[in-house]
This record gives sequence, C-alpha cells and structure tokens, in this order.
Amino acid sequence: MTTTPRAPFARVHIVGTGLLGTSLGLALVERGVEVTLSDASPAAMTLALDYGAGLARTQDTASPELVVVATPPDVVGAVVTQMLGDYPDALVVDVASVKQSIYDELASIPGADTRFVGTHPMAGRERGGALSARSDLFTARPWVVCEGESDAREALRTLVYSLGAIPVMMSAREHDDAVAVVSHLPQLMASLSAARLSHASPAALALAGAGVRDVTRIAASDPALWVQIVAANSEPILTQLRDVATDLGGIINSLESLGTPGSRATLATAFHNGVAGVSRLPGKHGVSTSVASLIVVIDDTPGELARLLTQLGDWDVNLEDLRLEHSPGANVGFADLSLAKSVVEQVEHKLLSGGWKIAGETR
Amino acid sequence: MTTTPRAPFARVHIVGTGLLGTSLGLALVERGVEVTLSDASPAAMTLALDYGAGLARTQDTASPELVVVATPPDVVGAVVTQMLGDYPDALVVDVASVKQSIYDELASIPGADTRFVGTHPMAGRERGGALSARSDLFTARPWVVCEGESDAREALRTLVYSLGAIPVMMSAREHDDAVAVVSHLPQLMASLSAARLSHASPAALALAGAGVRDVTRIAASDPALWVQIVAANSEPILTQLRDVATDLGGIINSLESLGTPGSRATLATAFHNGVAGVSRLPGKHGVSTSVASLIVVIDDTPGELARLLTQLGDWDVNLEDLRLEHSPGANVGFADLSLAKSVVEQVEHKLLSGGWKIAGETR
Repeated sequence: MTTTPRAPFARVHIVGTGLLGTSLGLALVERGVEVTLSDASPAAMTLALDYGAGLARTQDTASPELVVVATPPDVVGAVVTQMLGDYPDALVVDVASVKQSIYDELASIPGADTRFVGTHPMAGRERGGALSARSDLFTARPWVVCEGESDAREALRTLVYSLGAIPVMMSAREHDDAVAVVSHLPQLMASLSAARLSHASPAALALAGAGVRDVTRIAASDPALWVQIVAANSEPILTQLRDVATDLGGIINSLESLGTPGSRATLATAFHNGVAGVSRLPGKHGVSTSVASLIVVIDDTPGELARLLTQLGDWDVNLEDLRLEHSPGANVGFADLSLAKSVVEQVEHKLLSGGWKIAGETR
Repeated sequence: MTTTPRAPFARVHIVGTGLLGTSLGLALVERGVEVTLSDASPAAMTLALDYGAGLARTQDTASPELVVVATPPDVVGAVVTQMLGDYPDALVVDVASVKQSIYDELASIPGADTRFVGTHPMAGRERGGALSARSDLFTARPWVVCEGESDAREALRTLVYSLGAIPVMMSAREHDDAVAVVSHLPQLMASLSAARLSHASPAALALAGAGVRDVTRIAASDPALWVQIVAANSEPILTQLRDVATDLGGIINSLESLGTPGSRATLATAFHNGVAGVSRLPGKHGVSTSVASLIVVIDDTPGELARLLTQLGDWDVNLEDLRLEHSPGANVGFADLSLAKSVVEQVEHKLLSGGWKIAGETR
C-alpha cells in the first residue's frame, strides 16, 4: 500500500452501497481516507460495513469534505439536493450513467452551481451488486468528470487518478451524446437482436456461431436499470434510434424491391457504413492498431490454452485481444488471437512449427 | 494420418478455389481422395494448385463421383446446372450460405432432384480468401445437409463426419429461416449499430467499452459478399427485420412519450425480451450451462495471461469462455473468465490466495 497515491479528500461520505458505492468505499479506505456510508436499505448497509467499505455516521463524526451519491439513477437528483443542504461545506458528486438530466433537475438548487459535479466511472458493466464490489473496480477505466467549479474539477481529477482510473473531462451534454452512441444504442440493438431468438427453433439455435453471441451478449443486462438509463437520456438516444430506423427502413425497402435500380446499392451502402464505423473504435492503449487474427485449434482440456499462451509469452508476443469459442457437441475449441499485423506471419510460423493447428486467419 | 477417417468418395471435383473450396481440397487430399480443381480465375486456380489442394483436370482424369460447387453465391445455380450436365453420374453439392433460392433455381433442371444436395458448412466466418485456407477449417463446426435423395444424404453425412465436422440435417427452408435469425439479422444489426459510430466524436469513441465492441465486431465483414447473401435470403430476413422495426418503433414511441401510461412498460418489455432471447443460445457442448464470470486484472506484459491460465490448468479448472479487454491508455488488462457456477467460489479463493486481483464478477 505504500506506493498507493493519496486521495485529495480526508473524509468522504458515500450514499448508496451498491457495486459502485461499496467499491469506491473499499478503494478509499485502502488509501487512508475516512469513509462513512449510508443506504436506504439496512441490509445493504450492513453488508457494506461488513466488507469494510467504511463506517456508519454518528453524532461524533466530522463533516465530510466530499459526498458521493451512488444511488439508483431515479433518486440521484433528490439525494444530491439533500446532501448539498446537509453538508454545506462539502463538494457533492454523483456517479450515474446519465448526466444532463441531473444538472437540469439541480438548476435552481442553492449551492449546486458551485458545489455539485456530475461524474461517471465507466466501470461495473451495469451488473452485479455490492457482492461484486472490489477496491480495484475502477482500475484503468475511463471516469468522466463534468463541467463544474474549477478547483473542484482539479481535486476530482486527482481523486480519479489516485483510484487508478483515467479522468476524462467533458460537458454533461457531450457525455450524454457519447454514451448514447457507444453504450445505450448498442444495448438496445443487442436487446432487439436477442428478442428475435425467443422465437427461433432449437435447430436454428444449434447453428449459432460467434457472431450472434457477440451481438447479443449484453442483452443479458438488468432490464430495470436499463429502463431508468434510457428514460433519463431519451433525447440523445432518440437521435440515434431515428437514424437507425431510417437506415433499417431503407434496407427493408431494398429487400422488398430487389431488382429495381438502386436496391442493391442501398444494401451495399449499409454494409460499407458499418465497416467504416467499426474501424473508428480505438484499439488497445488508445491507438488504432492494425490487427490480424489467428484462430488456433485447442483441445478442450484444462491447461491446453495456458500451454499456448505460455509459448506466446516465451516468444514475447503480446496479444491485442483473445477470445475462446466452442461448437456445440465438439471436443475442441478455438482460440481467436488478435495480433499486430507486423508479427502475425512470424507467430503463425512458430505455432505451426510447434505442432499447433491453425483453423483460420484474417490479415 | 493413419487415424483420419476415410472419405466416402474416391474422386471429388471442386469448382471455386476460395477459402471453402481450397480448404475442402486440402482436407480431402489429406484423406487420400483424388481431388481436381477449377476456378474462373487463373490466378486463384494457380494458388490453390500451389497449396496442394488438388490437381487440374486433364483428358485422362476419371470422372468425379462428387462435384462440390464453392463459387460466389450469385453463380451457384448456373454452375450446378452445368456440372449436372458435364458429369451425369456424379452427385453435385454446393456450400453457399443460402439454400432455398438455389433449389428454386434448379427446380426444372434434369437430374437436380436426384443428384443435387444443398449443404452449408458453418465455417470460414464469411472472411478470408484462399490465402486463409486450412485443411482443418471445418473441424467441430456444424455442416448443414439439406433434403435430397436418401443414399446421397447418407454418403454426405459420412463425408462431413470424415472432415471432422458435425452434420446437421434440415430442409432448405428450415436452414434459411435459421440463418436469417442466427446469422443474417445479427450481421445487419451489427452494421446498423456500427454505422452510427461514423458520426461519433473521438471523445465519445474513447469511452467505448466491451459492449459496443461486441455488438459491432462482425460489422467489419465483406460488404460485397453480404449483399449477395441477404439478397438471396430476402423473405426470411424481411420477416426478422419487420419484427425488429415494430419493436424499434415501440421503443421510439415510448421515449417520445415518457410519462404517459405504459411507456416505461414497453421499454421494460424490450429489455426483458432480450434477456429471454439471449438465454436460449446453447452453451458449450450444446448444453445450457449455468455460467458465472470472474474478471481478473492482468499486467499488460507477455506471459502474464499464460501464467494465469497455467494455474487454472494446474487446478483442473475448465474455462467455458475467456475474453481479454483493455482500456485505452492503461497498462493493465482484464481477463473475463467464464466458469461453471459450481466452481467459481473455489476458483476465486484460489486466485486471491495466489495474489491475483479480481476486478469484478457475476454469478
């Protein structure tokens, strides 16, 4: 712990002991901060205290310098308002997934303009409760800090760094537009795609490969939380959904009138726009890298994948990404290795020399 | 090679030396089959011959017992027709991604009813050309064999097994309905989602996490091939897309009229339907397993992941799935281990005892 950076606040009060609140408590306690907790649910509170994420407030507890509101999204505005009144010298922040609606709600609340800052740690994957809390939940994750009084921003930036996270400064509106396209739209598209599987035959489902699994994976997220999120960010999401509806209508029209001029061009444009969009996602370490993929056949026994990765490590090969896949009824799997294009040929040669089977590749 | 199962055809002619045709040639040659090749492109043909995927036909070559048409989808019908005429004693199969349109096209062709069988190996991921060809491309992948003369079906079933693939018998229409929902719809949804990223700011893209990457990954597929696929399977795809458009319209209406009765219920239903659909995808080995996830922090150095997986192997822990993730600008990554729920607590305890950090979990 001796090398752990110091947090810039000596006393922090956390309201809401779910995954984010409890994880933040654990992280701050580890960094020597005096943390107090509260939660509307006595059971949730007891659990967080047992975890060591902080202490309950008593009459003798000194006032906090920072209050973190980590409640469900629908009560954040009300709780922030109460905290601004209860602790008139404290900075108050929240950690909810949507930001502008909270600023709007607080517009006429005394003190909100100077003592409230909206933030959003991109961690927790919208899943798991306090039972999943970890002090390193925020490690290496972006943490958005919104506009606000500049001294507060500076202290919050230092706090985020001290937690091992990456501060990203933007306005509430920029944040909401950003998460609409990189988080909320993909969630809705995954749910829409997965809903179609409800009506598929078992024979059809047996043909499912890696593609449909990728597209629908996040559809398993908590519906109650997602209703709150999309309702709170309706305008930016509507902008995205209307564009999708237009594109979708164009594809439907094209498929209904194949053979008429332009119908296949519309389809081609839809696929080309997808290629162009996905290529804009940043690669590892924030750099767009040129990545190739090698698919290696893996016997489905414990230790086989480790043996492969040990060899890659021995050769000083660094993976950009790695995925495992299985086919129903098969005794083998596939490891899909993403590698820098500059090394893929050399790695393939070494793997083949080492007796590994390559099931496919792309460059 | 001594344990490799024998193929049930002594002489096979393959038309089209792309990824599938060349891979099949390599696999059959390995199994002692006399393979001949042809391709409309002399360059592609030369490459496949160089790879050893078969020989060119000469006047002395005996007639094939089986002809495999592995051309681009738009010419499959014409090539099958020609092959039925050129080799009147041969069974003719294709390997295209859509089946009913080919049967329709061949309805009045002499010999097609008894000597043509449509098939579809679920391999190759719609990407990579002959350069990616491998004799084990089909290992453990489902391979659909459509209705047809029963002796032919039996021989094809044996052929598929001999190639290490898993034969799946269904009608052409069942196949097309199946791939519309588990392959073609997800592809279109990924492309529609990714297209929205074209207009996103770099700041927004920097917030992209695992969710949007999953949803949009297959949007990088080849547009030209996908136009042919969706055009050939338009009716089953339209059924899916119209249902998606209806659901999407409902979500848009709800977000436009939040506050009116029922609007949030529509949103909740959309997310719940997604949860229900994704839960129907079969797990590893065709069994729906109860899987939990542990997210382990990995130093971003070669060999670190191998060290983790070696330990898991030493403990006889078998992974259901494994994914690697990185955050932009960070020096650590996360390994998301999917494990049977029955072992996750024990594994977590061992990992923590071994000094690993757990960044999150779901059970």
